[in-house]
Amino acid sequence: MAGNSIGQVFRVTTFGESHGLALGCIVDGCPPGLEISETDLQVDLDRRRPGTSKYTTQRREADEVKFLSGVFEGKTTGTSIGLLIENTDQRSQDYSKISDRFRPGHADYTYHQKYGHRDYRGGGRSSARETAMRVAAGAIAKKYLKQEYGIEVRCYLSQMGDVKIDQVDWDQVEQNPFFCPDINKLEALDELIRQLKKEGDSIGAKLTVVASNVPVGLGEPVFDRLDADIAYALMGINAVKGVEVGDGFDVINQRGSQHRDELTPEGFKTNHAGGVLGGISSGQDIVAHMALKPTSSITVPGETINVDGETVDVVTRGRHDPCVGIRAVPIAEAMVAIVLMDHLLRHRAQNSGVTTTTPKI
Amino acid sequence: MAGNSIGQVFRVTTFGESHGLALGCIVDGCPPGLEISETDLQVDLDRRRPGTSKYTTQRREADEVKFLSGVFEGKTTGTSIGLLIENTDQRSQDYSKISDRFRPGHADYTYHQKYGHRDYRGGGRSSARETAMRVAAGAIAKKYLKQEYGIEVRCYLSQMGDVKIDQVDWDQVEQNPFFCPDINKLEALDELIRQLKKEGDSIGAKLTVVASNVPVGLGEPVFDRLDADIAYALMGINAVKGVEVGDGFDVINQRGSQHRDELTPEGFKTNHAGGVLGGISSGQDIVAHMALKPTSSITVPGETINVDGETVDVVTRGRHDPCVGIRAVPIAEAMVAIVLMDHLLRHRAQNSGVTTTTPKI
Amino acid sequence: MAGNSIGQVFRVTTFGESHGLALGCIVDGCPPGLEISETDLQVDLDRRRPGTSKYTTQRREADEVKFLSGVFEGKTTGTSIGLLIENTDQRSQDYSKISDRFRPGHADYTYHQKYGHRDYRGGGRSSARETAMRVAAGAIAKKYLKQEYGIEVRCYLSQMGDVKIDQVDWDQVEQNPFFCPDINKLEALDELIRQLKKEGDSIGAKLTVVASNVPVGLGEPVFDRLDADIAYALMGINAVKGVEVGDGFDVINQRGSQHRDELTPEGFKTNHAGGVLGGISSGQDIVAHMALKPTSSITVPGETINVDGETVDVVTRGRHDPCVGIRAVPIAEAMVAIVLMDHLLRHRAQNSGVTTTTPKI
Amino acid sequence: MAGNSIGQVFRVTTFGESHGLALGCIVDGCPPGLEISETDLQVDLDRRRPGTSKYTTQRREADEVKFLSGVFEGKTTGTSIGLLIENTDQRSQDYSKISDRFRPGHADYTYHQKYGHRDYRGGGRSSARETAMRVAAGAIAKKYLKQEYGIEVRCYLSQMGDVKIDQVDWDQVEQNPFFCPDINKLEALDELIRQLKKEGDSIGAKLTVVASNVPVGLGEPVFDRLDADIAYALMGINAVKGVEVGDGFDVINQRGSQHRDELTPEGFKTNHAGGVLGGISSGQDIVAHMALKPTSSITVPGETINVDGETVDVVTRGRHDPCVGIRAVPIAEAMVAIVLMDHLLRHRAQNSGVTTTTPKI
Repeated sequence: MAGNSIGQVFRVTTFGESHGLALGCIVDGCPPGLEISETDLQVDLDRRRPGTSKYTTQRREADEVKFLSGVFEGKTTGTSIGLLIENTDQRSQDYSKISDRFRPGHADYTYHQKYGHRDYRGGGRSSARETAMRVAAGAIAKKYLKQEYGIEVRCYLSQMGDVKIDQVDWDQVEQNPFFCPDINKLEALDELIRQLKKEGDSIGAKLTVVASNVPVGLGEPVFDRLDADIAYALMGINAVKGVEVGDGFDVINQRGSQHRDELTPEGFKTNHAGGVLGGISSGQDIVAHMALKPTSSITVPGETINVDGETVDVVTRGRHDPCVGIRAVPIAEAMVAIVLMDHLLRHRAQNSGVTTTTPKI
Repeated sequence: MAGNSIGQVFRVTTFGESHGLALGCIVDGCPPGLEISETDLQVDLDRRRPGTSKYTTQRREADEVKFLSGVFEGKTTGTSIGLLIENTDQRSQDYSKISDRFRPGHADYTYHQKYGHRDYRGGGRSSARETAMRVAAGAIAKKYLKQEYGIEVRCYLSQMGDVKIDQVDWDQVEQNPFFCPDINKLEALDELIRQLKKEGDSIGAKLTVVASNVPVGLGEPVFDRLDADIAYALMGINAVKGVEVGDGFDVINQRGSQHRDELTPEGFKTNHAGGVLGGISSGQDIVAHMALKPTSSITVPGETINVDGETVDVVTRGRHDPCVGIRAVPIAEAMVAIVLMDHLLRHRAQNSGVTTTTPKI
Repeated sequence: MAGNSIGQVFRVTTFGESHGLALGCIVDGCPPGLEISETDLQVDLDRRRPGTSKYTTQRREADEVKFLSGVFEGKTTGTSIGLLIENTDQRSQDYSKISDRFRPGHADYTYHQKYGHRDYRGGGRSSARETAMRVAAGAIAKKYLKQEYGIEVRCYLSQMGDVKIDQVDWDQVEQNPFFCPDINKLEALDELIRQLKKEGDSIGAKLTVVASNVPVGLGEPVFDRLDADIAYALMGINAVKGVEVGDGFDVINQRGSQHRDELTPEGFKTNHAGGVLGGISSGQDIVAHMALKPTSSITVPGETINVDGETVDVVTRGRHDPCVGIRAVPIAEAMVAIVLMDHLLRHRAQNSGVTTTTPKI
Repeated sequence: MAGNSIGQVFRVTTFGESHGLALGCIVDGCPPGLEISETDLQVDLDRRRPGTSKYTTQRREADEVKFLSGVFEGKTTGTSIGLLIENTDQRSQDYSKISDRFRPGHADYTYHQKYGHRDYRGGGRSSARETAMRVAAGAIAKKYLKQEYGIEVRCYLSQMGDVKIDQVDWDQVEQNPFFCPDINKLEALDELIRQLKKEGDSIGAKLTVVASNVPVGLGEPVFDRLDADIAYALMGINAVKGVEVGDGFDVINQRGSQHRDELTPEGFKTNHAGGVLGGISSGQDIVAHMALKPTSSITVPGETINVDGETVDVVTRGRHDPCVGIRAVPIAEAMVAIVLMDHLLRHRAQNSGVTTTTPKI
């Protein structure tokens, strides 16, 4: 039931299957007067799009997005925004072999048992293709956040397999197909991907999202904490198995005297918290990490069952990424931007006009 | 705005500050006819309650919960359930010293800047005392899940500081004040806590939650995935900085051929996924881990600013846990139970009557 | 499921049965810094309270409301507000006779078939006693609206049986127990009530709610229109069977040239629309009417069935109002105030900072 | 903010302006396995479509609806359903004259002041054209309700101007362009419309919706009452100014002994309540009435102001219905069907398995 929406005030609702006629979404609650065009969205869609580098799947999807409503004379009107991307490169034949069996590590079995009737073509609704609409909607949020508040939401690849990033040079991120901020690791990443392609296997990855210039005060104290909503948003991306805010799992072996970020008139001394205290943004950078599993769409044969419950083999041919983590970079940015946008508007609803004499550090 | 609720169909809304008159909550959407009494809730409240062992804070809170509505002649009526716990041991004087300054690592600064006016006594709404109501509400969910579906939600301490659990013996968990499933680690834990008390410092922890007998099919495919909602629920617990489902961050260095859980007529061969595929429960155990930071309520003096933005020192006296992770065990169980309960009812709404000829493995 | 809440940003959730221990509610999303005390709420609670005049039921309920959270040093903190009214005058014995049969015109039969298990004492959750919490929550909204925006929400009795009000003198409304704005009708109303008491019967009523100083722009264009939400809020009051905005059912026989309210630089020429155009407030007074049925709690014997489906007689003794419409006056005000408050905050979320060069007429 | 959705479990979200590229909606939460095709929706769309009779506007809109997702091999999959209708006959030039002024009785002024920037072409989002998507979504609900529960939702014109229906012959309703159930009133209706066209004026109308075979038990006791949600849904249709359930405003002058519907083993004796008791369906027919104002799109010149606040004249040329009430018949059915569908699923979520020994009368 009704699980295709995210956000309460700024709300995004999506539809669309991998091999259906089109993907689409409705962005509800966007403030009016924002200058926006398809081009603004296309930039991020192209960053997510397959077929753009040799490291990702060679499927070609134009992923051309259209505004169907909510924008008039180049500006948002405040009414619901309809977005559409038509599916053009569908090649349904690739998937006919797996219509009666459940690919391990995929949603085939769970969809089948939940709904009784499923669109098996390319994973249907469970395909990562659905995330294109999140990216499109997120681009609207990103533009508003940047323009009205100077907030920037950016993401990079922080690890793939055993290749860990040592240094973060933001200028590097968009210069290479890995979204890798460390120029010294490009060769190792290239080597790893080539090895995986040879093996017909895949690998996991870690991404880091940073939101800067977020004002103090966003988030709700108890359930809809900013970090809880970020965890929900990131864990809701296909293949994600773990989310951290700030120091994450490293806190297990930290002392309180070491972890707490002390305050000074010039700002916090450290940012172990990752920009969130008590569920509310502190004014520091919001920092989150996420782990993405290796895709199960590999050519190494696997064992599974068919719809009659009998043991069968399965090989996922087709065109797939050896590391789905790479293309998740714009998706992660989009999800965090949607969460921030929603909380910014929610904060404005309740706390417009709140002022204190305490300086914002 | 409206951030004190969790769940859509089974919905829990809470109120209450650490040092106010009372804590309370409303549980909306509980099915009728469930036999329930205050005693059913008290068991879990007592597991969370401070003052029960020498390892946790010595504050004594009776935490006696009362049903105010929604239960008649020992059974739920299907109307909203009102729950109340009166605050008895408040000692407001302990906190007067910190009314004008912001404790590092606490929500003091963010609440102050967000709302302009805050209840500083014991952290007010940001106090972990608020979680008592989650535990009470969760106990209702736990009872229903167990009785109607045989679902069990349990949690244990899997690490504290550098003390890692090696083996899981469920029978041990309730036998020691650490909720530790490994009898061989009790001494090391005791040693660590005594050391911390001496230092006036605190330590982080890792907890593991396991839900067993969860039927296949719970969760929504896109945004309200079961794992996303679990991440939201667990990250929404005070002090939590990281959440994993299944293999979590270990997937970064796994291969696809290694991670994917193959299916056989007898069941899945492995459970790297942690019981969730494509956002939907697979019928395997749901396994989640979470990291809790060391509490910042320590007696080691720290630097901070006051409401005028000037540098001041702060020492958090009062009675605090050296490891807040311990008492989070029943809270984590409660949060996961609330999520499962909500998704179970949501699944029933949409998919009542769905059947397949494929056996449930 | 989850049907005990109203509002999205300013959200009120209630619990409580007629003869349970207490009634309560949680007000979530109230802006911080609002000066408020129990006395502010008590005024409206006393207006709704039974036993205050000879025209209404003689049950005595102190209806003393207490803040349990969300208010600190006399001002709201922005966190959830817990409100409680303990039930004191319960007299459960009055109702024992009707535990096994369904009073006609009441919710007994529908609750029984929906839930299988119901609190039959005084109607349980279906009792109008539940509305006390709406009045309490509404008083908070009323205070904020008045203080921050000058908005006033008032209601009066516009008809009872065949006694129609001819003139509206607001000063009269609080001067008589009927909330009647027409001094010339008091005698007729008194006469009608005395007649009904003699007969053991009851009568319907019509109320009119007026919200003044509402700024232009509140409400959503499609589903959450301001008038739709007002209709929802008023139809959700016990016994209400009809709701009108502006000219209501009179429009059926109006011409377009007659109904449309023309605009001039000095304001609208007329207010047939009742202050809402396209679902959005126009800046004129919001005017709504509602019809309340005669209570079925009468001493005229009636025919019904018992839980075994057999024909039985039923007489509702106890202490009941001959016209429940009278006491609905503060309830209607509260409901409209909650809707306005919610839409005001929602408007602020999306449209803060929108300005036009067009004067507000 | 986020006001373009209706329903909680079965949720419909729409987008689209009168003269934009397309209208669309997402239907979320539809049970899987329902056989459905575009043709099922087209029937109702054609009933609403303009240009089909001489009594309604001569604008021609193909209103051809397409499924973009959520339906596979002719059956719903349980994932979100995307629906699209492209706008073909737009004639933007008709509206250029009114871009700088506010048509009286329309949403022009309120949109302008709320959002600062609006699509003035044909009323943009405020155009009744938007209701096409409600009809499309409602047709899905209607099919499910009919097929799974035998529930039927039908509507007829019960009054136009001073022409009141005397008898209801359901077979007549679809035989004439007025949806009039009384063959003896067709001539009077025809006469009235011709008169209005001559005058360039318009008239109001009253519609009656009846839902039959609704099981006992749908609806929530306090806020989300079935009648409250019906009031919300119907008042949310363009031009509606009043809603009644059962006897509606007639109850004002009824006695309790007269209004209450007595129960017998064979059923209720009467249906003054309109099928709802205490907010919950009683198993009787749900009966609701609504009043629609005369459209303000008339050729009788009117006075208004322009965006600079100056007095100007306005004449709405273009092609408009003299009575918008007529075409609202399928819209009203759709709205009630959506509400029933949502409550049916919600009821199933909470109360699956509730049984009583009391026969359903």
